[in-house]
Amino acid sequence: MPSGLQDMPWISGQQFIAGERVASVYASFSSHDAVTGRALPYTFFPATDAEIAAAADAAAYAFPRYRTSTLDERACFLDTIAEELDLLDDRFIELVMQETGLPEARIKGERLRTGNQLRMFAELVRAGDFLGVRITTAQPQRQPLPRPDIRQYRIGIGPVAVFGAGNFPLAFSVAGGDTASALAAGCPVVVKAHSGHPATSELTAQAVVRAVSRCGMPPGVFNLLFGDNVGGPLVSHPAIKAVAFTGSRKGGKALFDQACRRAEPIPVFAEMSSVNPLILLPGALQERGAAIAAGLAESVTLGGGQFCTNPGLVIGLKGELFETFCRQLADELQKRPPAVMLNRPTLTNYQLGLFQHAQQHGLELLATGSTADGRAEACLFRADPSLLFAPEHPLEEELFGPATVAVALNDWSELVRWAQGMGGQLTASLFAAPSELRDCRPLLELLETRVGRLILNSYPTGVEVCDAMVHGGPWPATTDSRSTSVGTAAVDRFLRPVCYQGYPDEALPAPLQDANPWGLRRQVDGQRQ
Amino acid sequence: MPSGLQDMPWISGQQFIAGERVASVYASFSSHDAVTGRALPYTFFPATDAEIAAAADAAAYAFPRYRTSTLDERACFLDTIAEELDLLDDRFIELVMQETGLPEARIKGERLRTGNQLRMFAELVRAGDFLGVRITTAQPQRQPLPRPDIRQYRIGIGPVAVFGAGNFPLAFSVAGGDTASALAAGCPVVVKAHSGHPATSELTAQAVVRAVSRCGMPPGVFNLLFGDNVGGPLVSHPAIKAVAFTGSRKGGKALFDQACRRAEPIPVFAEMSSVNPLILLPGALQERGAAIAAGLAESVTLGGGQFCTNPGLVIGLKGELFETFCRQLADELQKRPPAVMLNRPTLTNYQLGLFQHAQQHGLELLATGSTADGRAEACLFRADPSLLFAPEHPLEEELFGPATVAVALNDWSELVRWAQGMGGQLTASLFAAPSELRDCRPLLELLETRVGRLILNSYPTGVEVCDAMVHGGPWPATTDSRSTSVGTAAVDRFLRPVCYQGYPDEALPAPLQDANPWGLRRQVDGQRQ
Repeated sequence: MPSGLQDMPWISGQQFIAGERVASVYASFSSHDAVTGRALPYTFFPATDAEIAAAADAAAYAFPRYRTSTLDERACFLDTIAEELDLLDDRFIELVMQETGLPEARIKGERLRTGNQLRMFAELVRAGDFLGVRITTAQPQRQPLPRPDIRQYRIGIGPVAVFGAGNFPLAFSVAGGDTASALAAGCPVVVKAHSGHPATSELTAQAVVRAVSRCGMPPGVFNLLFGDNVGGPLVSHPAIKAVAFTGSRKGGKALFDQACRRAEPIPVFAEMSSVNPLILLPGALQERGAAIAAGLAESVTLGGGQFCTNPGLVIGLKGELFETFCRQLADELQKRPPAVMLNRPTLTNYQLGLFQHAQQHGLELLATGSTADGRAEACLFRADPSLLFAPEHPLEEELFGPATVAVALNDWSELVRWAQGMGGQLTASLFAAPSELRDCRPLLELLETRVGRLILNSYPTGVEVCDAMVHGGPWPATTDSRSTSVGTAAVDRFLRPVCYQGYPDEALPAPLQDANPWGLRRQVDGQRQ
Repeated sequence: MPSGLQDMPWISGQQFIAGERVASVYASFSSHDAVTGRALPYTFFPATDAEIAAAADAAAYAFPRYRTSTLDERACFLDTIAEELDLLDDRFIELVMQETGLPEARIKGERLRTGNQLRMFAELVRAGDFLGVRITTAQPQRQPLPRPDIRQYRIGIGPVAVFGAGNFPLAFSVAGGDTASALAAGCPVVVKAHSGHPATSELTAQAVVRAVSRCGMPPGVFNLLFGDNVGGPLVSHPAIKAVAFTGSRKGGKALFDQACRRAEPIPVFAEMSSVNPLILLPGALQERGAAIAAGLAESVTLGGGQFCTNPGLVIGLKGELFETFCRQLADELQKRPPAVMLNRPTLTNYQLGLFQHAQQHGLELLATGSTADGRAEACLFRADPSLLFAPEHPLEEELFGPATVAVALNDWSELVRWAQGMGGQLTASLFAAPSELRDCRPLLELLETRVGRLILNSYPTGVEVCDAMVHGGPWPATTDSRSTSVGTAAVDRFLRPVCYQGYPDEALPAPLQDANPWGLRRQVDGQRQ
């Protein structure tokens, strides 16, 4: 254990509600060391129903003031959060490593990504295009009826409940993509700290709260709750107007059902699961099968295979080329060291999944990487093609960890039939030689209706945070295929349009005024200005 | 009955499935004359479960071809539907009048609006901005990792189930706004014909099918089903990927619940109910109370009060000015003739609603318009302010017809408290003198979070079909506050983003190719081009 961490007074384990630290000490839980599984000396207090309600109410109270902040105020706030994250010292990095088992370079890289993500949304806010201003000017002389002046823009939907992911303790957790895009949209957040990294969550939350205070934002704009029973009461609370979640299909589905059952149902953006199929055409294997096998082994085992975009299904066409490829992939995976997993439950789930795969008729274990106690070994399975077409889609159940399943299909028509029946996925990767690609348009058109991102000759892991990214896809990859949780378009999830009819300039919100005081690019009578 | 209609062979009453007419004659129902309530000589066959499934399958079969049509092909198709509607002769107009009780000028005006709406979406499709193309170019030299080329655009979500409204037999029915926006997005439709105007629906569907054929579109792009038990099986069918509905809160909620319970839940865009509150400030009443009363009486009774935006709640501040206004409004409404309603069930529901209002403690009938058997009289009620704050929100229950409820609040703070607790509405109208408006920004900011459209010194009826319109609002006005069902932004409901990573030009869909063969305005590396 790193020196000095044992008796840190800097982690109180209490909820963050409107800038206050609150806990009713009726129970507590600990953070754990990912490597040893042992409890760390940090104690956390699960939020009571009253605390959950207080956090939601605090967010609702902050909403009117926060949503009417200027673009510059909001952008500065996002930049300041990034700054505060940068200021966290090495003890923070050590702690994240300890809680998640992720290596130092990854944590530092992820912090950089998290800050860049916040800064990207700050830039988006400053530009103001996301407000989507549309103006239809009056035509008082129009016959048979005059046309009124109508002006539309988009406003934040209201307080957002954010459920951080376990596998991105920074970039998709407390101050991650969901929080950043909700704040960009003008929505306060209530974050549920992931149970896999509560201390990381606490220190990140402290950084956010410092930014709230430095920027003079209303304290309820950010709230954080600990505990495993937060989901139901939080999503049911009337003050919450949208939900963002990254995690398991079971967890996402439960929140979705809860949200639908509310007196006022609310949108849920849950990124739940994906096996991210790879399709390997013979020409590509012929050209560079060994290189693809090496690259795929790297992608399967990257970060212990704990990515939403981990390639869990590899599909080829029957024949010697694919057989050779499978042997090469097996060789590559056998060389891989075992991985420390994010936490014990994740390791246990992975091992249970491997056991279930081994029991499944039609699934055969081809190779495993090296093993070690308390670590996850890489695994390659081979599946009978019939499993791909089974009505329960067993090969589309995500096995979270460094494992993948290879399937050889008989021919192109079987490939098309599989693609037609496939459930929603975050990604599909195609490996094809240039000559093969010419005939792939029909397959791509099919895949386009099933996934959020189509990748050519590369691996799905590594999600670029940019304008064009789609990290989403049809059910069950997400609960709402019309959204992305990564990239600037993620802000659209938390905005809704509203319009003013017949209001004079002085009564309009600034973005809609004739003089355009915020200097926005707007659409006026169908023309971009 | 108009001559020649009695034995028309032009209405078969069968389903429209992929261009074929189909019916299993196990039962039938009739269309009715709105004025007399008598059955008309047109027989319709309720769709069987097999027919419903066949229609959904037909739409799914048409989807791949329809969604990959060029923008020009799709735009021409929408224009051609408009043309075919224009070609419908006077017998059609007479029939719609007979089925709905709406006057000739209204039907002709609505046909014009319906055609203009289709043409507006055609123009939107031709411009192509709705594809939302975003390109992030590659940076092969970037450290520590190269940036891949990523290109995003939006595609149709899949077949859409459309539930036409009873109150707009053309503009929000078979070829109305939902159908037009779904087709614009590249989505085939399965329309459920409204039981209030099945013959109108059949003739409109024939016009659409002629357009399908003239344009060489895949026949399954448009399908129409008759019968009252279509909703459940249609919304549950796996081929259906979104639902558009305009109607009652009960109906919309039932479809929403059904959609959430699916193995693959789908988005539902239901526009359900609204009382469209008017807020009358004393200065406005002082300036022109009599004129407002006359205008409001016109708005309340327009189209028999059968508009989603009918003003059903009038809120003023206690005092002589508001008392005078209520007397003026009563006088105006007393002068109003009774209205033929769209159909008997609508009339019966209205009368039941009036009866329930009369029973409600705290509600008093102030005035009624003139009456006639089988017609709906205008009604003005007066409510005790306590009803506005009752937890069940009784005054926010829509009474569909020419009735409205006036409430006098004690002061400004009560007005703000009401606005804070109000459920979602399509609109809120404020009547204020210029001097009063200066102090209204806090109230407007509050209303902005509760409604889709804020109107100044005018009435909510009359929804302009344009770029800036928002016909939507928070629950229970709609099931999804992030959408509008009127105006060009309605197309967004049926689109989802997808991106390509690392694909060469020749394998990309045309909108994403470097050469930009469709001449689209695109966002490239954050810059509009």
